[in-house]
Amino acid sequence: MNAVLDYLNAHRDRFVRELCDYVRFPSVSAQPAHKPDMRACAEWLVARCEAIGLEARLCPTAGHPIALARTPRRAGARKPHFVVYGHYDVQPAEPFELWKTPPFEPRIEGTSLFARGASDNKGQHLAHLNAVEAYLATGTELPCDLTFVVEGEEEVGSGNLAGFLKERQAELRCDAVVVSDTGMPAPGLPALTYALRGITAVEIKLTGPNRDLHSGIFGGTVDNPAMALSQLLAQLRDKKGRVNIPGFYDDVVPLSAFERKQLARLPYRERDYVKFLGVPRLFGETGYTAWEQRSARPTVEINGLTSGYQGEGSKTIIPSWASAKLTFRLVPNQSPAKIAQLVKRHLKKFVPPTVRAEFQDGHGGEAYLLDPRSPQAEAGLRALKTAFGREPVLLREGGSIPIVTEFKKILGADTLLLGLALPDDNAHSPNEKFDLDNYAAGQRLSAALWPELAALS
Amino acid sequence: MNAVLDYLNAHRDRFVRELCDYVRFPSVSAQPAHKPDMRACAEWLVARCEAIGLEARLCPTAGHPIALARTPRRAGARKPHFVVYGHYDVQPAEPFELWKTPPFEPRIEGTSLFARGASDNKGQHLAHLNAVEAYLATGTELPCDLTFVVEGEEEVGSGNLAGFLKERQAELRCDAVVVSDTGMPAPGLPALTYALRGITAVEIKLTGPNRDLHSGIFGGTVDNPAMALSQLLAQLRDKKGRVNIPGFYDDVVPLSAFERKQLARLPYRERDYVKFLGVPRLFGETGYTAWEQRSARPTVEINGLTSGYQGEGSKTIIPSWASAKLTFRLVPNQSPAKIAQLVKRHLKKFVPPTVRAEFQDGHGGEAYLLDPRSPQAEAGLRALKTAFGREPVLLREGGSIPIVTEFKKILGADTLLLGLALPDDNAHSPNEKFDLDNYAAGQRLSAALWPELAALS
Repeated sequence: MNAVLDYLNAHRDRFVRELCDYVRFPSVSAQPAHKPDMRACAEWLVARCEAIGLEARLCPTAGHPIALARTPRRAGARKPHFVVYGHYDVQPAEPFELWKTPPFEPRIEGTSLFARGASDNKGQHLAHLNAVEAYLATGTELPCDLTFVVEGEEEVGSGNLAGFLKERQAELRCDAVVVSDTGMPAPGLPALTYALRGITAVEIKLTGPNRDLHSGIFGGTVDNPAMALSQLLAQLRDKKGRVNIPGFYDDVVPLSAFERKQLARLPYRERDYVKFLGVPRLFGETGYTAWEQRSARPTVEINGLTSGYQGEGSKTIIPSWASAKLTFRLVPNQSPAKIAQLVKRHLKKFVPPTVRAEFQDGHGGEAYLLDPRSPQAEAGLRALKTAFGREPVLLREGGSIPIVTEFKKILGADTLLLGLALPDDNAHSPNEKFDLDNYAAGQRLSAALWPELAALS
Repeated sequence: MNAVLDYLNAHRDRFVRELCDYVRFPSVSAQPAHKPDMRACAEWLVARCEAIGLEARLCPTAGHPIALARTPRRAGARKPHFVVYGHYDVQPAEPFELWKTPPFEPRIEGTSLFARGASDNKGQHLAHLNAVEAYLATGTELPCDLTFVVEGEEEVGSGNLAGFLKERQAELRCDAVVVSDTGMPAPGLPALTYALRGITAVEIKLTGPNRDLHSGIFGGTVDNPAMALSQLLAQLRDKKGRVNIPGFYDDVVPLSAFERKQLARLPYRERDYVKFLGVPRLFGETGYTAWEQRSARPTVEINGLTSGYQGEGSKTIIPSWASAKLTFRLVPNQSPAKIAQLVKRHLKKFVPPTVRAEFQDGHGGEAYLLDPRSPQAEAGLRALKTAFGREPVLLREGGSIPIVTEFKKILGADTLLLGLALPDDNAHSPNEKFDLDNYAAGQRLSAALWPELAALS
């Protein structure tokens, strides 16, 4: 094990350069224009896996390809098997003008590497690959078989991953899945995330007149779709921060006293949090702490609004249509499909007869909950303590990794969420970054994890 | 006069070709990229005026230049003086994809000339120029002096015209201003418009977090500016179509029984109107007819909404900010400045403490009202009858020509609004067109108008 850690330490700078190469690919899965970049990025990853001695290949899907790589198997040996999951696709980088330096030109400042995808998720899964390299390069025997599944559609809902897992169910059946795509509550404070929120997305478009109309000539006789949309959206959330849709909370399991106690132990200073976000004041569901609001309670968010003239100056029109992108963060036991139905049923009920409504379902993903006192969770906590030299905390996280529930269903395995992102890593925002100390700690974590997990089998 | 009419008839095709040349200039005043096109368009117009024998020049302003042209004055002769006003700037042509043929490539289909600016306003003021050409070319003496003032900023609020009028007050003092920039209620049915709505514009931007945030990581603890904006906008208009701002209706003069009777005589078939607009159902202020709602009642309109991610696919963010472009159509006696104040005061009161609000005032213009039984109005009605061969109607129009109130204040003259646009001319919309029969009738109207008006002086 010392040889592995020495190797990781000795190659630290090269690993950073490799991560820089990786984040230079603008692998934005949501934007068709970046399809060639997606492929080039995936090919780079496969070549990287092969270079360190893994058997690797690019698997086509109906969408972006999935990189599949595994440690060499010794004939006859029966070892525990773990899957490491990651994603090489990234969020769109817009708005570009808010980046201090271009999103796909990595920049190092102190211990931070700035680039879109640095933290979400390229740096986090590359750390695991680095650790495997250290095992293989030093001739240290891995106590388990490992398979890396790195997909290219996480940011657009992982639409082809479940099918991929089903097709390769025998090959991918494993004792646990390991995912580093979550966060730590503070620098140096490692965390095992035992719950994730789910998500469901609905897009709504209201159309009034069949073209933009002169607001002087026709204004007063026709509804304004942007006004109709505002009125429809306005009543989705009440003044207490509750989602105002009948049945929305029906399946929500109340937080237990134990959980509230765990969450209350997490570091939090309202003044710092307010300053960090840059908001004039916080807003959340009455009766819950900020940690509870952002990780253990469901929400409604408007992700985008579009209507009429948005250019310079004014255009005195009644816009023909108005649209909104909505997502709902869900908690364990809420069904994304059921919530999407409730949302649409509710919205349809309130669409005025003066406009036509069209709905488009977006991606959905179930929330996830793992028993934080299971042997695997405890193995993960020990590896975190070894890697970071500090007692880890138990965390719920507000983000969604819908595929985690698929791992359970298809591969029969629980997922250990061992995240390396810091609260200020700006995932999904301009100036995304990844902490290079966490990158190194992530490599040590991965090195320490396999013996801990393998020992359970 | 017969010589004038014969000339107009003989040169009909050439006049159409000239109008085609005129609308080929993409003279979009709101978009800085079109500044060279604006200048080229104005220069074309001045050259055209000079070609028919007018003294013409381009007058610089702080914004786009104003074309000024006048009939040759005979030394010592004291004739009545009238100003013809028009504007060579046009609305933005977006969304381009809804145009059947490109907006700045004129296309003739039947008696319709399709192009941005054809009806609003190039075709309408060119008809007056054509009539003057006919007088001058046939050696028919004009019973009056005429000055053409054709500006380039009508679609962005005529910000420099009042100053221009004040500077040239002596030169431009006149007995009446004639403007063809309004509409006719139906093909073949001429109208004198005796009232216009005013307008005031306010833009609002709400900012929450100082960047777009990951809706999973932070969602639940911060307000969503797009939701805050929707809730703010939603309460601006009630279910009865009333603007829900305290004091908004205070200065509105109720419609008289005479006016309601006049408006009731205008052609209107709800089924046709609904079909023409393509709306599922009409919506307007309870207690008023459609003609009243669209011409004699004030309104609130959202002209544009902008927030967050608007591209393909989804982006799970809490947007940093959300903005809306608002305009309010006003009726005689409402003050644009006062209404803008009321609007901002009301909105500020309801901005939640979780976001920061910024307001930007747009252009404003007062509504206009002319006594429909004044001698000049009756002269206009007679000229309309002569040109169209049909009894004209009295109309209020919902659009705004803010400068009309400036003509009254600065030049001391009333304005005759003798519009040539048809209800389906798609002003401000894709596929704008101008009826070539109305173009010809407009030329005859202008020819008949000057003797009628001059006789009053």
